[in-house]
Amino acid sequence: MKKVIGLGDLLVSFSPPGYQRIIQANSFDISYTGAEANVCVSLSCFGIPASYVTRLPDNAVGKAAAAMLNKFGVSTEYICYGGSRIGLLYLEKGASQRPSRVIYDRSGSAICEAGSGFFDWDSIYQDAQWLHFTGITPALSSTTPELCLEACRKAKEYGLTVSCDLNYRKKLWSTQRARQVMEKLLPYVDVLIANEEDAEKVLGLKPGGTNVDTGILNIEGYMDVAEQISRNYHIPYIATTLRKSISASDNQWSALLYHDGKTFLSKEYRIHIVNRVGGGDSFAAGLIYGLLQQFEDQKTIEFAAAASCLKHSIEYDYNLVTAEEVMELVNGSGSGRVQR
Amino acid sequence: MKKVIGLGDLLVSFSPPGYQRIIQANSFDISYTGAEANVCVSLSCFGIPASYVTRLPDNAVGKAAAAMLNKFGVSTEYICYGGSRIGLLYLEKGASQRPSRVIYDRSGSAICEAGSGFFDWDSIYQDAQWLHFTGITPALSSTTPELCLEACRKAKEYGLTVSCDLNYRKKLWSTQRARQVMEKLLPYVDVLIANEEDAEKVLGLKPGGTNVDTGILNIEGYMDVAEQISRNYHIPYIATTLRKSISASDNQWSALLYHDGKTFLSKEYRIHIVNRVGGGDSFAAGLIYGLLQQFEDQKTIEFAAAASCLKHSIEYDYNLVTAEEVMELVNGSGSGRVQR
Amino acid sequence: MKKVIGLGDLLVSFSPPGYQRIIQANSFDISYTGAEANVCVSLSCFGIPASYVTRLPDNAVGKAAAAMLNKFGVSTEYICYGGSRIGLLYLEKGASQRPSRVIYDRSGSAICEAGSGFFDWDSIYQDAQWLHFTGITPALSSTTPELCLEACRKAKEYGLTVSCDLNYRKKLWSTQRARQVMEKLLPYVDVLIANEEDAEKVLGLKPGGTNVDTGILNIEGYMDVAEQISRNYHIPYIATTLRKSISASDNQWSALLYHDGKTFLSKEYRIHIVNRVGGGDSFAAGLIYGLLQQFEDQKTIEFAAAASCLKHSIEYDYNLVTAEEVMELVNGSGSGRVQR
Amino acid sequence: MKKVIGLGDLLVSFSPPGYQRIIQANSFDISYTGAEANVCVSLSCFGIPASYVTRLPDNAVGKAAAAMLNKFGVSTEYICYGGSRIGLLYLEKGASQRPSRVIYDRSGSAICEAGSGFFDWDSIYQDAQWLHFTGITPALSSTTPELCLEACRKAKEYGLTVSCDLNYRKKLWSTQRARQVMEKLLPYVDVLIANEEDAEKVLGLKPGGTNVDTGILNIEGYMDVAEQISRNYHIPYIATTLRKSISASDNQWSALLYHDGKTFLSKEYRIHIVNRVGGGDSFAAGLIYGLLQQFEDQKTIEFAAAASCLKHSIEYDYNLVTAEEVMELVNGSGSGRVQR
Amino acid sequence: MKKVIGLGDLLVSFSPPGYQRIIQANSFDISYTGAEANVCVSLSCFGIPASYVTRLPDNAVGKAAAAMLNKFGVSTEYICYGGSRIGLLYLEKGASQRPSRVIYDRSGSAICEAGSGFFDWDSIYQDAQWLHFTGITPALSSTTPELCLEACRKAKEYGLTVSCDLNYRKKLWSTQRARQVMEKLLPYVDVLIANEEDAEKVLGLKPGGTNVDTGILNIEGYMDVAEQISRNYHIPYIATTLRKSISASDNQWSALLYHDGKTFLSKEYRIHIVNRVGGGDSFAAGLIYGLLQQFEDQKTIEFAAAASCLKHSIEYDYNLVTAEEVMELVNGSGSGRVQR
Amino acid sequence: MKKVIGLGDLLVSFSPPGYQRIIQANSFDISYTGAEANVCVSLSCFGIPASYVTRLPDNAVGKAAAAMLNKFGVSTEYICYGGSRIGLLYLEKGASQRPSRVIYDRSGSAICEAGSGFFDWDSIYQDAQWLHFTGITPALSSTTPELCLEACRKAKEYGLTVSCDLNYRKKLWSTQRARQVMEKLLPYVDVLIANEEDAEKVLGLKPGGTNVDTGILNIEGYMDVAEQISRNYHIPYIATTLRKSISASDNQWSALLYHDGKTFLSKEYRIHIVNRVGGGDSFAAGLIYGLLQQFEDQKTIEFAAAASCLKHSIEYDYNLVTAEEVMELVNGSGSGRVQR
Repeated sequence: MKKVIGLGDLLVSFSPPGYQRIIQANSFDISYTGAEANVCVSLSCFGIPASYVTRLPDNAVGKAAAAMLNKFGVSTEYICYGGSRIGLLYLEKGASQRPSRVIYDRSGSAICEAGSGFFDWDSIYQDAQWLHFTGITPALSSTTPELCLEACRKAKEYGLTVSCDLNYRKKLWSTQRARQVMEKLLPYVDVLIANEEDAEKVLGLKPGGTNVDTGILNIEGYMDVAEQISRNYHIPYIATTLRKSISASDNQWSALLYHDGKTFLSKEYRIHIVNRVGGGDSFAAGLIYGLLQQFEDQKTIEFAAAASCLKHSIEYDYNLVTAEEVMELVNGSGSGRVQR
Repeated sequence: MKKVIGLGDLLVSFSPPGYQRIIQANSFDISYTGAEANVCVSLSCFGIPASYVTRLPDNAVGKAAAAMLNKFGVSTEYICYGGSRIGLLYLEKGASQRPSRVIYDRSGSAICEAGSGFFDWDSIYQDAQWLHFTGITPALSSTTPELCLEACRKAKEYGLTVSCDLNYRKKLWSTQRARQVMEKLLPYVDVLIANEEDAEKVLGLKPGGTNVDTGILNIEGYMDVAEQISRNYHIPYIATTLRKSISASDNQWSALLYHDGKTFLSKEYRIHIVNRVGGGDSFAAGLIYGLLQQFEDQKTIEFAAAASCLKHSIEYDYNLVTAEEVMELVNGSGSGRVQR
Repeated sequence: MKKVIGLGDLLVSFSPPGYQRIIQANSFDISYTGAEANVCVSLSCFGIPASYVTRLPDNAVGKAAAAMLNKFGVSTEYICYGGSRIGLLYLEKGASQRPSRVIYDRSGSAICEAGSGFFDWDSIYQDAQWLHFTGITPALSSTTPELCLEACRKAKEYGLTVSCDLNYRKKLWSTQRARQVMEKLLPYVDVLIANEEDAEKVLGLKPGGTNVDTGILNIEGYMDVAEQISRNYHIPYIATTLRKSISASDNQWSALLYHDGKTFLSKEYRIHIVNRVGGGDSFAAGLIYGLLQQFEDQKTIEFAAAASCLKHSIEYDYNLVTAEEVMELVNGSGSGRVQR
Repeated sequence: MKKVIGLGDLLVSFSPPGYQRIIQANSFDISYTGAEANVCVSLSCFGIPASYVTRLPDNAVGKAAAAMLNKFGVSTEYICYGGSRIGLLYLEKGASQRPSRVIYDRSGSAICEAGSGFFDWDSIYQDAQWLHFTGITPALSSTTPELCLEACRKAKEYGLTVSCDLNYRKKLWSTQRARQVMEKLLPYVDVLIANEEDAEKVLGLKPGGTNVDTGILNIEGYMDVAEQISRNYHIPYIATTLRKSISASDNQWSALLYHDGKTFLSKEYRIHIVNRVGGGDSFAAGLIYGLLQQFEDQKTIEFAAAASCLKHSIEYDYNLVTAEEVMELVNGSGSGRVQR
Repeated sequence: MKKVIGLGDLLVSFSPPGYQRIIQANSFDISYTGAEANVCVSLSCFGIPASYVTRLPDNAVGKAAAAMLNKFGVSTEYICYGGSRIGLLYLEKGASQRPSRVIYDRSGSAICEAGSGFFDWDSIYQDAQWLHFTGITPALSSTTPELCLEACRKAKEYGLTVSCDLNYRKKLWSTQRARQVMEKLLPYVDVLIANEEDAEKVLGLKPGGTNVDTGILNIEGYMDVAEQISRNYHIPYIATTLRKSISASDNQWSALLYHDGKTFLSKEYRIHIVNRVGGGDSFAAGLIYGLLQQFEDQKTIEFAAAASCLKHSIEYDYNLVTAEEVMELVNGSGSGRVQR
Repeated sequence: MKKVIGLGDLLVSFSPPGYQRIIQANSFDISYTGAEANVCVSLSCFGIPASYVTRLPDNAVGKAAAAMLNKFGVSTEYICYGGSRIGLLYLEKGASQRPSRVIYDRSGSAICEAGSGFFDWDSIYQDAQWLHFTGITPALSSTTPELCLEACRKAKEYGLTVSCDLNYRKKLWSTQRARQVMEKLLPYVDVLIANEEDAEKVLGLKPGGTNVDTGILNIEGYMDVAEQISRNYHIPYIATTLRKSISASDNQWSALLYHDGKTFLSKEYRIHIVNRVGGGDSFAAGLIYGLLQQFEDQKTIEFAAAASCLKHSIEYDYNLVTAEEVMELVNGSGSGRVQR
């Protein structure tokens, strides 16, 4: 099977053990994360070959980051080594009324210096069928918009499907800059993931009536937004997760796929959270998997929702579940009986 | 007070810390477990002398397993040393919609070579009043059915009460083989623990209407099954736990005792799970304790249900609570106020 | 800003990792705790200068205890070194129906030998505006009632506000002794925290109708008690937390302030508990902060309730949150969205 | 085989992980230690039945302490429960030029209230052949000298061999008090362990020429002291370890036995230290084992020296080695080849 | 560059943290080890493509074992999944006079059922230049000698160089059986690693004068043995490590290569041991690297000796050092200055 | 007593537990380090008031860094908050022949933007007697040379003693740039620490005959260099440590002070290393302490050498020993006897 290509950054994630605050910690648990890398790892766990395209510093930490992708079966053959540092983030895991908090220290990471002409897309795409990137990658530096544009253009030349998760990050760029850049990239996109906040901030599309803080969702509003995106940008598949945050410990979780003028809504899960970081990425991976497997639309969104539901029960940011485990949840009850 | 004798295997249980998956772990937490051993430990914590009969390899791991029983007051004087290996299992603790998963590697464990004539029952029973075993022990090898049969027959000679937890394990034997063997053993049994699945798989008795996956229970169906077992096999006490699995993190839990044509149903607990493995064994221990203390039937089932409710709040497989702690829950509210 | 002074003991708290019982543990997590010290740390995290007055043994453990206060910005300049030991406690963290359990080993701790004349209050109060103590301090030994009395009397000379948390501990003294001592101290108190149990046990005031074990609270009864206290002892501010214990894992939490004949009730929070120890102390700190900031009464009780709600999500006994974090919860939804 | 009885205290030992200082630690490793308990555990590991006589508080920590003895096969049937606290100590493990440091907090431990008449020696000694105690036990309180005297007197009535390790602790009593008490106990002693410092401080016997700090030992001086002790107190066996401290990480280690006017000196070992605490206790156990096995004197001292040499490679205070492992070292090279 | 192929088993290695004995441990550190796998990992770290051929059970533990090889860049594409279990071992790390101890539980591991015809050597060797195996693999079961024979024969057909480490394990087979099997395999071997014990036990060649326990080595004897092996079996390269065990903590380490009638002896290193397991495998990898790089013989043996010297400073069994790090030691002083 | 002021950066230090390599680690131990901060912490442990001047980002990590200084008694009142990041480093601890390795990621740390006029030296110096900085601080950015120059000039205005550790770091600047900057700063320096490498690289002064890699030192050469420095720059006190690196695990350690034309050489210690990072900083602190206490020169260098010897036995970079502990080593044998 041809590969899925992820393009983006790879960061060290430092988090205090358990529910400690940073000031309490004598040690940090470490993992290596990145929105698109997380998607690649999840796809690899589903049995889909995936290759990650990034740049890492040529030192023991850069090598350790790549080794972690290798561990989970993601190819690192197109990773370039150079630059002065790997980006990083500090994550305090929240609980109950205390939200998780993330401090980023990623500016100047190795990939930031990469632009158009940096990677050899002809080699990379030669055995590939899909490109996935998120709105984080073009936001990283002044050169990464060109990097993404080239990646998209070349992807189309090679006949790849292109998926994008808008993933707006206010600390990386302004809404104006985001819209300006993303509007150049969206014409290449076949599958777009955009939650309500992304759609509003990046695309200026607002359904009204939803309040992300209260956890009250407005499904109809979402449908309306999806339709607008689809129409404006000619994107066949629009999807989003629907998170109702009850607290940092408990969430309701479902997902929605808009395709061909129809909306497909998944089952809703009541989740007791182990770790919610990477939930969106695991959804993207589930969606790509469903589309690659040519599942029917309803089954695709059920798969993606169940995959990302399970992610919340997994430590760190990778969704280390198999496709079989996801299908068990899709078809089962989620009652958590011991499997012996 | 005379001893309770447990007969069965003792395994090393390896589990990744917290909610890690096996592939993530750099270390495994270890404990030493076995259905009947767990019962002995719980009884010992209740103040009942207990002795465990098994066979362990004569090496540092076998010795460490026995030492763990000693730590919790269970006598190991009748444990024989020999054989080539200790059985083991890998346990991934589940959370929310992700179930716990167990991988067994127990075939060829030291006890598997033991059969009739292997243990000196005359010594073992000389100061004993009760024998407990489960359906796992006869399922271990071709010789262990005879081992169990001898243990039961001798137990009756020495006037012991015999309890058995059917505990059907599909990876160890077929339902046909299980029924064939267990039907030879049941005539010796005075107290039988059999949940609905066990009763159906091993004894072919099905009440209809219950779905273990959905967590919807059928109390009346259970009563019907209990009555059939009691009638068919002349067993005075039939008991079961009633688990409603909401998720791997939350369960409803109660229990039922059938005796003399009457059914006694315990309070129901809403449990937030720390570790549910060993829940059934802790129930067996609670039941044996209630019967040994000659509690009234209702109090017996309340004690057993409360004991096993508390087990879900304890790490690893032993129910390390005192009889006083159980009675506090039986008589109290379970509201979890700090005890200073 | 002038300092808040805390007076009391400082203990080592030993607790098994996670939900282990003491018998299972190979190591204990350690922290340094004390009702008034916890208040000082919380105030320091809110930006209020605080200084802790106690006595510690002149050894590595005493020094480590003081260093932990320093770490969180609490001044230790008035701590005296001497005496033979630091007090300690063992805490088993409960879960679900299993309550947390505390074993104290604090008699003969260094502060127990301190009485009237021991500390130099003239220096201590020279740059101070507030004294906080709890009913634990006078209960520690035969000399600490005099110590507290002197601290209170001197505080009034220097114009300090005095707050007290009744905090009745039945293992430290009898209700009779407690009433006898506390009635001498209450005339100096401006702000009293007393939950229903404290009020009844120490002051003999009982509202009727509440059962702390069932988690059913009687707000009106509380108001009645608050009014009696206010009238009997001429204390302008009476406050309490209102905990409904559902289990050791889940609680409902709110708080109440009585002032000028009016009662102010906070929002109620449904809390999934990480660690509930120190909840009351974090409430005291929140209350003192609100009063120091001259918040309106409703805002004060909301701040104190939100502060102590957040405490339940923090490991160990200190409420390591900023005033900004508390205000986010007061003004927000507590929905626990990731803060990036 | 008849039992060896140990009489003494049992303490919780708290130590920071690795080489951390107390002020750095977020957790303490815990173990349960006591000079005579350590001897009992070692003997039990050698296959000698041992029973420990002490008093522990009736709480979870006291129970955990006893459970740890049970784990290693030491009987706890004669342990009495009561009293208010378990003694404890804090141990900072040293390295290189930094010595290990111990802070004791043991006054008022449960055993301190025990005196003559407290234990039922008739039951305890009924199946016993040996009593072991150290100079720490009579030093604990005003009643423990009588406790020890009774234990010794009764031991003689029952025909037990009595061994004593002088183990002078300057923080527990003065040299005058020590001599006064020990001189009443020595007439009952058959096997005495006394290093040079003990002999000088407690018995006032000084060989001259040795400096414990420099690690320069004076074997002839020791012999002279041993002869004096033997003559003065009519003790047939006098033994000591000979430690040359090069640093906290490296020591030379050998031992000496004086019997029947002859001196037996063991091999000397160059030890790279994992943990040296409990070295003396492991020597006592080795010595008792050799005498119980009726080894020749040279073999006895070689066994005791090798046993205690191995102790330095074991974490915590128990010498968890078998007699076979000790004999391997006695007969082998100590070259540390992997045993597969 | 063409690949090096390793053929052998892959086991889980469980070891107590630090210097704990098995009976003390609450957790085991885990790693995945196998003599030939360790060689592959080391070569991969040197930049040589390597692929491991084995069979693993199709469960989470088997997958985790393969993932660990992937992490370090070793290809797992020819690993077959099936069989009932992964082999395992328990390792207690020794210190000072206490040797490390290994308990194997590897019989019936998945590879044991593989024999001739099991693997597709035509695919495996199509892009390969070297085969490495050890004497452990043919010792595993009755079918693995044929498996090795086929692997060797096919290797020669494809023009691969074949290296073998005799690695005699007395728990796996008798010396007679070993000689019988190995003599069929040696004709295919180009590079043989055989320490003195292997040579004597498997090939019956004894130089006299060496005592592995005392650490006294007989270089001339080794040369004589190497010459005999070379002559008898027509093997161009014979090599061995020369370990002088001072204790489990300190060793002297050097190595010797015999080629074309000449003997090349490396520098000798005084090693303070972190973990010596895998020392021999790291030597094999160093040797293969030197030969692949066509280093001169002296440089080859220096590289191999330095590589395996460094291994002793690395936790677990893989030699995670780069070729540059090895060359730094070959060319430098080993004085351990901080590299900033 | 007036304060010692340290000026420099403060970094997070991440290191894998034990001797793991970065690629093996699932967690990093964390500490907060900086050459001058380490000096301040050590002085604070000796009882000297110290205050650290730096700039940290206004986030949880910056606050945690400052809190760690507070914990050890160092004042943080003059720390400014702002800038985008805290610098960091990754440290792999070496052993035996494998050196420790440090990867820096410190460019753009908050202090880098500080220059002349940034700090309020009039406030800072108002209660100060000593300024300490190292060659790292002026090397950090284009503005920090001016920052240091201002700090020095103002220090002289306020009558402070100024000490400097040359501490040349080749990754931060060239030798030319270093010399150019340092020659402007040296006129203000009263106490200079410069090892042979620093002197040669920064000041171009070379004694000949020493090889830092072989551990062979040339004391006379050092004296010559010290004299040249003293003469050229009119610096009264010149000091250096003398490290003979045997391996990453074992070092010989002594120190030398040049004053008034005389050279004072300390005792030499054979050190078994726990952690050597921070050794130079602990020497600077010891030296400053000796000079502040007005010890005689020989005692000063003995104190400084003993202090830094002890540092090697302490985890992480702070020298957490008291002046009493240092004096014990100065006066004692370093034989590492347990202190009870």
